[in-house]
Amino acid sequence: MEHWIGIDLGGTNVVVGLLNDEMKLISKIKRSTGADQGSEFVLSQIAEMVDEVLELNHVDKNDLRGIGMGSPGFIDPIRGVCLLAVNLGWKDYPVAARLQELTGKPVFIDNDVRMYVYGEAMNGASQGHDCVFGITLGTGIAGAFVDHGQLFYGGGFMAGEVGHIPMDGEHHTCGCGLKGCLETVASANGIARQAREALAVGRASLMQQKLVNDPQAAITAVDVSKAYDDGDELAIEIMNHTGKVLGKALASVVTLFSPDCIVIGGGAAQAGERLFAPMREEIKNNVISFYWDKLTIVPGQLIDDGGVIGSASYAKSRLS
Amino acid sequence: MEHWIGIDLGGTNVVVGLLNDEMKLISKIKRSTGADQGSEFVLSQIAEMVDEVLELNHVDKNDLRGIGMGSPGFIDPIRGVCLLAVNLGWKDYPVAARLQELTGKPVFIDNDVRMYVYGEAMNGASQGHDCVFGITLGTGIAGAFVDHGQLFYGGGFMAGEVGHIPMDGEHHTCGCGLKGCLETVASANGIARQAREALAVGRASLMQQKLVNDPQAAITAVDVSKAYDDGDELAIEIMNHTGKVLGKALASVVTLFSPDCIVIGGGAAQAGERLFAPMREEIKNNVISFYWDKLTIVPGQLIDDGGVIGSASYAKSRLS
Repeated sequence: MEHWIGIDLGGTNVVVGLLNDEMKLISKIKRSTGADQGSEFVLSQIAEMVDEVLELNHVDKNDLRGIGMGSPGFIDPIRGVCLLAVNLGWKDYPVAARLQELTGKPVFIDNDVRMYVYGEAMNGASQGHDCVFGITLGTGIAGAFVDHGQLFYGGGFMAGEVGHIPMDGEHHTCGCGLKGCLETVASANGIARQAREALAVGRASLMQQKLVNDPQAAITAVDVSKAYDDGDELAIEIMNHTGKVLGKALASVVTLFSPDCIVIGGGAAQAGERLFAPMREEIKNNVISFYWDKLTIVPGQLIDDGGVIGSASYAKSRLS
Repeated sequence: MEHWIGIDLGGTNVVVGLLNDEMKLISKIKRSTGADQGSEFVLSQIAEMVDEVLELNHVDKNDLRGIGMGSPGFIDPIRGVCLLAVNLGWKDYPVAARLQELTGKPVFIDNDVRMYVYGEAMNGASQGHDCVFGITLGTGIAGAFVDHGQLFYGGGFMAGEVGHIPMDGEHHTCGCGLKGCLETVASANGIARQAREALAVGRASLMQQKLVNDPQAAITAVDVSKAYDDGDELAIEIMNHTGKVLGKALASVVTLFSPDCIVIGGGAAQAGERLFAPMREEIKNNVISFYWDKLTIVPGQLIDDGGVIGSASYAKSRLS
């Protein structure tokens, strides 16, 4: 039976997963990326991990059909080149060609968020929908669109950056240099920042308690969710506001891409209905009903394995 | 030499154009659509017009390779079906198949705005750019995206409706039922409405003069442009505001689609720099610089012939 490798490469860790031809994840191994030891080290270690996960599962390397890898940064998936990945120290690096030399197997790479969304669209929460927009609410916010099994790239492979739409009424400076980007509000960092700022100006909240115990303690998006569940007024206000801003941005996405399904992944998506209820309301109020009526909105299903499963699915699609 | 027919079908008139294989428009004829006489009349007349334009130009029907037609309403271009066109009285009508029977030639149809944008992208103002977003500022506002020669459809062929993004601070009810859609501000009707409303509450303006002569006179977008050129404060305010709102919506388009080129067509685009200058400024201020740096913004070039040229280009692409 044919097998596939999916790789989720991050600045800190790299996960190499073995999948069968039905895209079921059989086994995975995780190591430190070792980006500080150079690109050759990173890719050689990955090639070793590929052999290791095959041996571990008694799969003959001849049965390995292809390898997919999601990488941070800007990727040209057609040429298989990492255009720029700051936290890997890579620039115009022909990742796919080099890993192909090291493993002797066809290698396909793409941006990590596109791989995650591809996984959810083809083998996860959005499976069965033709047109899927995926958004990840992590430290930052990113998005990607899958159209009948094909990733959408736009010019220069830079489409889908929903996190960098400036939202009216928001003024916080974003890492990208713009002001009020969606990412400054609805990412895990954005939710935490709203809480921190409100506490700093003396808003009463159950979240103050954490700072009483330790004035240096970080207030996180998880703390906001917890306080929300305890009926904390500030936490409820933050979640409602965040969901509304997220919904406004996604309404534009709906009108421009006409997705059949939106899948929401990333750490902050664990806020679940606290965030999704006001978000849905805002989308509904800002799109023509024929978009809303056909739209399904789901939380991500693959969580940590999305990148690995998506990368393998992508490799399979490129070799079909 | 192979020839092509491009058809621009409207609720009032229909234009049938003959093009050579380089997509040069050789000749065109125009008639009343006659929608009130039924779909069979409309298509039979079009088939006659096809024969007529061929004879008129001494082109043998054997040299006619294919026919493209842009139609108002919702179109399924894959099946060649008009899903709904209110002003033609068509619903789930297999237009392409019927016109193919009547002409004996392959027929491909799509929505009129997508055909126009396809024409500008392949043979007009945006020729040579890989990823083109086109927007038409007419009575309403519509948009379409062409990605390396392929039209982008989204789910249910409903993508690109940039005219129906509700804009912050705008409250006028749109024909679609939402409030504050881009279309209520930046269409020809939207510009005229802003002028009318300001005059109604007694704003001083050179545009008042037209109403002094005839209190029932309609104030149009063209009147606003004229007053702008005469230094009228209200007209300048309206154009600046309109350009800014248009730019804000297009900034979202840029971040989500990453176009290499935006082409702006439709009657209100004739306002030109009066509208484009504040629009460009707003786009630039609301997108990450790597989008802006690669972006070209151009006015449409094909004007009245865009639908005919685009339809013929589309037919050619489907037969290639």
